[in-house]
This record gives sequence, structure tokens and C-alpha cells, in this order.
Amino acid sequence: MIYGGIEAGGTKWVCAIGDGPDDLGDVVTFPTTSPEETLARAVDFFASNGSIAAVGVGSFGPIDIRPASPTWGHITTTPKPGWADTDVAPALARALGVPVAFDTDVNAAALGEHRWGAAVGLDTFCYITVGTGIGGGGIANGRLMHGLLHPEFGHMRIPHDRDRDPFDGVCPYHGDCFEGLASGEAIRARGGSAADERMWGLEAEYLALGLVNVICTVSPERIVIGGGVMKQPELLRLVRTRLCELLAGYIRAPELDGGFDDYLVAPALGDRAGVLGSLELARTVA
Amino acid sequence: MIYGGIEAGGTKWVCAIGDGPDDLGDVVTFPTTSPEETLARAVDFFASNGSIAAVGVGSFGPIDIRPASPTWGHITTTPKPGWADTDVAPALARALGVPVAFDTDVNAAALGEHRWGAAVGLDTFCYITVGTGIGGGGIANGRLMHGLLHPEFGHMRIPHDRDRDPFDGVCPYHGDCFEGLASGEAIRARGGSAADERMWGLEAEYLALGLVNVICTVSPERIVIGGGVMKQPELLRLVRTRLCELLAGYIRAPELDGGFDDYLVAPALGDRAGVLGSLELARTVA
Repeated sequence: MIYGGIEAGGTKWVCAIGDGPDDLGDVVTFPTTSPEETLARAVDFFASNGSIAAVGVGSFGPIDIRPASPTWGHITTTPKPGWADTDVAPALARALGVPVAFDTDVNAAALGEHRWGAAVGLDTFCYITVGTGIGGGGIANGRLMHGLLHPEFGHMRIPHDRDRDPFDGVCPYHGDCFEGLASGEAIRARGGSAADERMWGLEAEYLALGLVNVICTVSPERIVIGGGVMKQPELLRLVRTRLCELLAGYIRAPELDGGFDDYLVAPALGDRAGVLGSLELARTVA
Repeated sequence: MIYGGIEAGGTKWVCAIGDGPDDLGDVVTFPTTSPEETLARAVDFFASNGSIAAVGVGSFGPIDIRPASPTWGHITTTPKPGWADTDVAPALARALGVPVAFDTDVNAAALGEHRWGAAVGLDTFCYITVGTGIGGGGIANGRLMHGLLHPEFGHMRIPHDRDRDPFDGVCPYHGDCFEGLASGEAIRARGGSAADERMWGLEAEYLALGLVNVICTVSPERIVIGGGVMKQPELLRLVRTRLCELLAGYIRAPELDGGFDDYLVAPALGDRAGVLGSLELARTVA
């Protein structure tokens, strides 16, 4: 069976056809413009690439993933201009005539890492992406994390020392929430140079604080952390060190005996986690 | 089948025999003294009460609940004097000759609320207790929340405005973590009068911040909040109001359409959630 996958990000969409990392056919990437234009490009890509059994979409959010909801498959309260209350999955299903699976971009990436990457065999783990925004999701007790809605790691509240960092934060809803302080957008808005070590020390501090909260709530067996900001050399190492200091030995588990190198890891699938996970998502409804 | 349940708290143990809320036989409560004395009192109670099929223990922690671990069933890094690295469940199983199920006190209470209380039928929900300490747990995707260890909601980091509240916090590991600022122990250590409205405003602020983080990570369909501190009149209402303000409309779900009155609720089983959940825990291994 051949599936279609869409990593529907706020900046770009990545569409692929295939069955997994060793059988990845055509991949196309285009910018996220208007909903009409963006959806049309995705439909054109799949329609011109032969027969697929189903499509999986990992979307930016917040999104409605409640199966019984009249707005299932829609993007809901996003602040992204033009995209609030957008029909995504039902529109694709109508246009392509195949079942469409719909989840968050981070849950899709988590599914990819669980199937082929850094989280194979784990029962409970989290995936976090630190890019323009901060998203999080994962698998709890063997299934994707859903619930009231879906996880929104980026909107946790974390300590903010205004003497050290007087920046107000960029979140239009919450100001200095986790995403408001530690996202790529926050780094840009705060200014400062990428060569400034203090800036990365501050970033590591915020990321470690957010990770402490993920560990204290979800208790993941591993955390996979990706996204553009994490490509900064040394940042992952700084975050591991600070995370260990903040936990202060309270959480004791064999996974942490050798330090955090095997606990807090980069995505094994790299930038392909999202689109590969979307293919896996498609498999669930085919 | 008749089961034994132990709510093994840091202050007192509650032992019961029965099958549920409508068939609760003898219940005995005694203070948590030394491990030897406390365990012996529990063994005596069950041994003198006829035949039980299994015992469930909901324990203060942190605890080892990893089935394959050589220290499964032990209390581990607790700061409670004399109780670090204490064999609880294996010791009870040896003394009583029945299977023993072991989980956190809050997961046991969550199980009780899921079986008979305020969370019947929910797939993902959280239970939080605000007493001497702060604990949290619950059910994710239909099963108790485990993972690396188990949830430790009390040790999240939350914003702490030292101008408003210069108190350093009481957590021996982290100072001003959630439990360090908002537990009953923190309220006592900070001083002030229970008649002081500002004090309860501050408490509501901290509890709401912790709940925001639970919602943004676990995405529970409902949160049940209990414990001694929550008996303060009006506190639950204050927390609901502040929680709604802090989320600022970002999380949109039908459960929240009517406000937070049905979302953030007191335990339907009241103070019996823990010991009833321990009976339900026993059923899983009988």
C-alpha cells in the first residue's frame, strides 16, 4: 500500500508519497500561503501521483481532532492570519476521495520517531519541536496523546526572571509563556547575536524549565527534541546539563543513570520525522 | 471477591477491606511512624480480618513501580525521615501471602474516581491532591499514567513573583517549585492568617499556574482536585476563575464552553478516593 503524508506547517507544507523511510517516493515542499492555494497544491500533488490508499496530515494548530465533532479536521484558534477555523482534513478527503487521518504536526512527528526513529518500542515518550513556535506531543500508554484537545507544550508557564531577561515574550495569548520566551520567534524578537553565549544560556534555561514540567507531568521514558532552534551547535548539550541541575536528583530512574545523553535526544529521522509520521498516520485509516 | 486496600500516606495510613463504596467493610486509620511499625499494623489488620484475594497499595513517593526492577514496590527518594528506600509491597506480599498491587497514592485515588467517582468513562484525566505536599497522576489513554517513573506534578516549575511573594519555598530539592510554593506545608511556613484573602489569592494563582501546565502537557478531559488545602471555602472557585483567565481562551473545547465548573472538580468520593482506589488496584492483580 502506498500512502500520502502532509506535514502541514505554519511556514511550509511538505507532501510525500510512500510507505516509510526506505520507500519514500516523491516529496514536494511549498510555502504556506492562503488555505485555498495551499490545499489546492497538496491536492494537485497527490492527484497527479497515482493511487494512494489514504492521506495522513500532521498539522499546525490548535486543531480539532475529536472524531465526533462537527469541525473535526479543522485548524481552530490559530493566530496565523487567514487560517483560523479552516477545514483541512474533510476538504482533502472530499477532493481526493480517500480516508484522511488528522493530528498535530508534533504528534505526527512523534509517530514517525516511534515507528522508525528514536522512540521505537517505548510506551510513553514525548516529542518537542522548537522552531518558530514550540509544540509538543507524543505517545502515552502506547497511543498518541489526545484528551481534552491535544498537548500544547508551548503554552505552559515557566519561571521568568525579569532581571535577567526583561523581554515580555511574544505569545499573543500569554506573553511570556514557554513559547513566548523560548521559541525561535522569541529569540528573533529579543534581538541579540547568535554568537552571544549568554543568549544560548538563557535559551537553555527556558528549554530545561519546560522539560522539567514535561517530565513531572507526563513522565516520558525519553524526550525527542527537534526543530530549527535545536540546530544551534551545543544547545542540546547545554539543555541536558541545565535539566539535570534543575531536577537535582529528585527523579531517579535507570534511564538517567548515565546522564541525559540517551534521555533527551535529537530526532533520529531528522527533518523527515513529520512527513514520515504523516505516512504512518495515513496507515491507521487506510 | 474481597480485597484489601491501603492508602499509604506520609502522615497516616488508611486500610480497608471490601469491594467498593457500597461494600466497604472495616476501615482503620493510624499514623505513619517507622516503616517497621507502620507495615506491621497494616499486616495485623489484614491478617485478623479473614481472607482477602489481593492487596492494593497507593503510596506516597517517589516509588518504584517498574515491574522488572529489583526494587519494585519500594519507596525511593522520599525526604521523609526513615522512609527512603523502604520495601513496602514485597514485604506486604511476603507477610500476607497474597498478590500486592503498588502505585502512587494519587494514581490510586485517580483509579477510584475513574471507577466510581468524578471521572467515570473518561479516557484521559488527571487527579491532583493539594495537602502537606502536592501530588498528581491520572489516566492517559485509558491506563494509569506511568512512564519513566510516575507523574510528580508537585515538582514542576511555575512563575514566582518575588515582589508579590518573597517566600523561598519549602521543597528540599527545588525550593520554589509548585509544591514548594503552594502545598499546605508552604502555606504554613509562609505564615499569615487563614482569614487573609490575599493569601488565598496567592494560593489560587499558584494552583492555577500548575493546572495550566497540566492542561498544556497531558490535555486531560477533566481534572479532579482534592486534598486538605482544597477544603478552604471558595478556593476551588478562585482557582477556576484564575485558570480561565490564564488560559485566555487559547484552549477551546466543548468541555469548557460552560466555564470550568464541570472541568475542575472536587473528588466525588471525597476523602475515600485513595483507599477505594487501592481496592480497585488490588482487583487488577487478584
